[in-house]
Amino acid sequence: MKLDESPIKPKQVGKVFNIDGVNLSTISSGVKYKNRDDLLLITFNEGSVVAGVFTKSTTASEAVNWCKNNINNDNLRAVIVNAGNANVFTGQNGKKAVQKIVLEVGKNLKINKNQVLIAQTGVIGEPLEYFKILKCITKLTRNLKSNNWIKGAQAIMTTDTFPKYSSYSYSYNESNIYITGISKGSGMIAPNMATMLSFISSNINISKKMLQSLLEELSEETFNSISVDSDTSTSDTVILSCTGKSENITIKNKNNKHYTKFKDALRKVLKDLALQIVRDGEGASKFITVKVSGKESKKDLKIIAFSIANSPLVKTALAAEDANWGRIIMAIGKTNLNVNLKKLKISIGDNLITLNGKRYDRYNENKVSKYMENDEIEIFVDLGGKNNEVTVWTCDLTHKYIDINGNYRS
Amino acid sequence: MKLDESPIKPKQVGKVFNIDGVNLSTISSGVKYKNRDDLLLITFNEGSVVAGVFTKSTTASEAVNWCKNNINNDNLRAVIVNAGNANVFTGQNGKKAVQKIVLEVGKNLKINKNQVLIAQTGVIGEPLEYFKILKCITKLTRNLKSNNWIKGAQAIMTTDTFPKYSSYSYSYNESNIYITGISKGSGMIAPNMATMLSFISSNINISKKMLQSLLEELSEETFNSISVDSDTSTSDTVILSCTGKSENITIKNKNNKHYTKFKDALRKVLKDLALQIVRDGEGASKFITVKVSGKESKKDLKIIAFSIANSPLVKTALAAEDANWGRIIMAIGKTNLNVNLKKLKISIGDNLITLNGKRYDRYNENKVSKYMENDEIEIFVDLGGKNNEVTVWTCDLTHKYIDINGNYRS
Repeated sequence: MKLDESPIKPKQVGKVFNIDGVNLSTISSGVKYKNRDDLLLITFNEGSVVAGVFTKSTTASEAVNWCKNNINNDNLRAVIVNAGNANVFTGQNGKKAVQKIVLEVGKNLKINKNQVLIAQTGVIGEPLEYFKILKCITKLTRNLKSNNWIKGAQAIMTTDTFPKYSSYSYSYNESNIYITGISKGSGMIAPNMATMLSFISSNINISKKMLQSLLEELSEETFNSISVDSDTSTSDTVILSCTGKSENITIKNKNNKHYTKFKDALRKVLKDLALQIVRDGEGASKFITVKVSGKESKKDLKIIAFSIANSPLVKTALAAEDANWGRIIMAIGKTNLNVNLKKLKISIGDNLITLNGKRYDRYNENKVSKYMENDEIEIFVDLGGKNNEVTVWTCDLTHKYIDINGNYRS
Repeated sequence: MKLDESPIKPKQVGKVFNIDGVNLSTISSGVKYKNRDDLLLITFNEGSVVAGVFTKSTTASEAVNWCKNNINNDNLRAVIVNAGNANVFTGQNGKKAVQKIVLEVGKNLKINKNQVLIAQTGVIGEPLEYFKILKCITKLTRNLKSNNWIKGAQAIMTTDTFPKYSSYSYSYNESNIYITGISKGSGMIAPNMATMLSFISSNINISKKMLQSLLEELSEETFNSISVDSDTSTSDTVILSCTGKSENITIKNKNNKHYTKFKDALRKVLKDLALQIVRDGEGASKFITVKVSGKESKKDLKIIAFSIANSPLVKTALAAEDANWGRIIMAIGKTNLNVNLKKLKISIGDNLITLNGKRYDRYNENKVSKYMENDEIEIFVDLGGKNNEVTVWTCDLTHKYIDINGNYRS
């Protein structure tokens, strides 16, 4: 099945910055796809620090298990990624596949296998013909180049309809800092500590411990704030590597002046990558932002936001451009969290929908219906008392989602 | 939009038993639907005991709030139901509507308003034109008959494509016991203490306290074990009334010989009504049974069973008759409950799919694909150690679900 490009594909960055010390290479292994690259190797120079977050699924892939066991190692130097087979629930063969692949990568790069990370995405439960991958690794390691980011983004696609990449740069203290990342979606997307594959690099000089804590914090408000279909993948992996090649700048602690600047820049890239996944959500025709504010904890606000974002009834109404806001009321209620209905203000775009525990007196259905025709819809839910606010992003639920998931073994 | 009858409509009982002391009446109020009855009154004789379970939604309807406040009253004598407007999030007007309706019913039946229960189903957030209902009540109370159960089932339908009713009888101690009930679905169905409307009556003689506890227990394994779309309604209501007219039999405690017999019979009727709701799930083309067994608590087993039953990826694969069992692995993992993958046995129908932490060696995809063409699909998940078992029921996710929910303000 050939998929058309998502109608809500975003404008992507024109310029993709290379990261000095990071090289990429892609190749076609033929595991599943024909006539396209499906294998990606990324290497980082010696002295890089690497952080990662992974799916919390208890049926996680062998690749995720390997990464969880090795992410705390110093001197991580490479990550290898294959698309088309997730190597999940594949027993001893699956474990062996991971061992063989990281060993072969290590041998070719003259590093230890424990310095190699691995990510795999695709169908679950099919035995992986890993010898097809092993055969490619020598060639893969010979073609490493710093300007292969977009090719890398293409090689990891599954039901994605466009490659996802983001790049950002700024100057500080006479040094240029660059951040470049790629990611892939597009189904089985629900927030649970990284919900897809993403690989990001920067030339910043930062400690491993700080980088890990920063990645965890920012993942919460980016990758863990998106949902396509409420299903959590067994393979979710985010790897962030920093080469330390930035001159004059070292981030040693959170009071370091540069920390906030780097954090803001990194947030931009992670958010951009996360939102591209939503914009390529399976069957998506609309990009939906759900903001929830109130005196409740951020955790509770997020439960409500995702209850709205994941509701099939809300999502099908959005697809049909129907201002059926009663379903938002339902989705709030089904969380079983107590809300003061009299204080509840719901807006769709600029249109206030509810006030004082009922439909707003000047509610104008025609105006809201007109707004619903947009490609991008914003839903605001104010529970009263604006102490906290969370934002999550999702897409609508369309016929195409059903077509894709009836036809593709993902 | 005119909906075709569900392709998986069940065989329904031929004989519907009247319950001596229970009378029903229906009428067309014109609140939303044209040319059909949409208002139902059920009355119980003096001396009846009544139990109820209701949605746990925190945005529950005014009708649910009224019932929760009054369900413990003795001498409940009637329930009035309207379809087409759920009277949810309708502010003071909504509260007033409930007050006026129960008062008018009480006046006509010469009972107190606190002896009248109310249930409402339909669109959320629209002001209810309750005067249209008030106008009908005198006529409604004049047409009460004991053989109006099927007409009652028809009057409470919304997106339902067939009326749902069930009836059962048995003899014990020279007395005939009858149980008859009706229910309606069909979307916004997810388990959270009764997930739709259902009204059941029996002539058994039982205490109010025992009846309430029995209804709560049996709801857990019937109404609270079904899901159509994981969305929980704001209006869910189950009312069980017993007239006490059975001769020679009084159930006084759980050791009473007749208790188990009545419980088994009542379970049959509740389960039949619950499964009819699944079989009329919006857009359903297949009826799915998910059984999960293991040494885990029933609560945890149910979380896993519903994670499978509610997964959009599992449901779309089922609709496409695709034996994509990897998505079952995903759905188990996303619960974050620990499972021993090596002990995990998954079967679809009679076909063993997984063994020893991987796909079963003799897995035959063609045979499973053939099985997937059936209207009724059974999925068995054995986590190892068969101490506990739960069963939940659901339907597939089809294009028709999207059509219905893009076109119907439910």
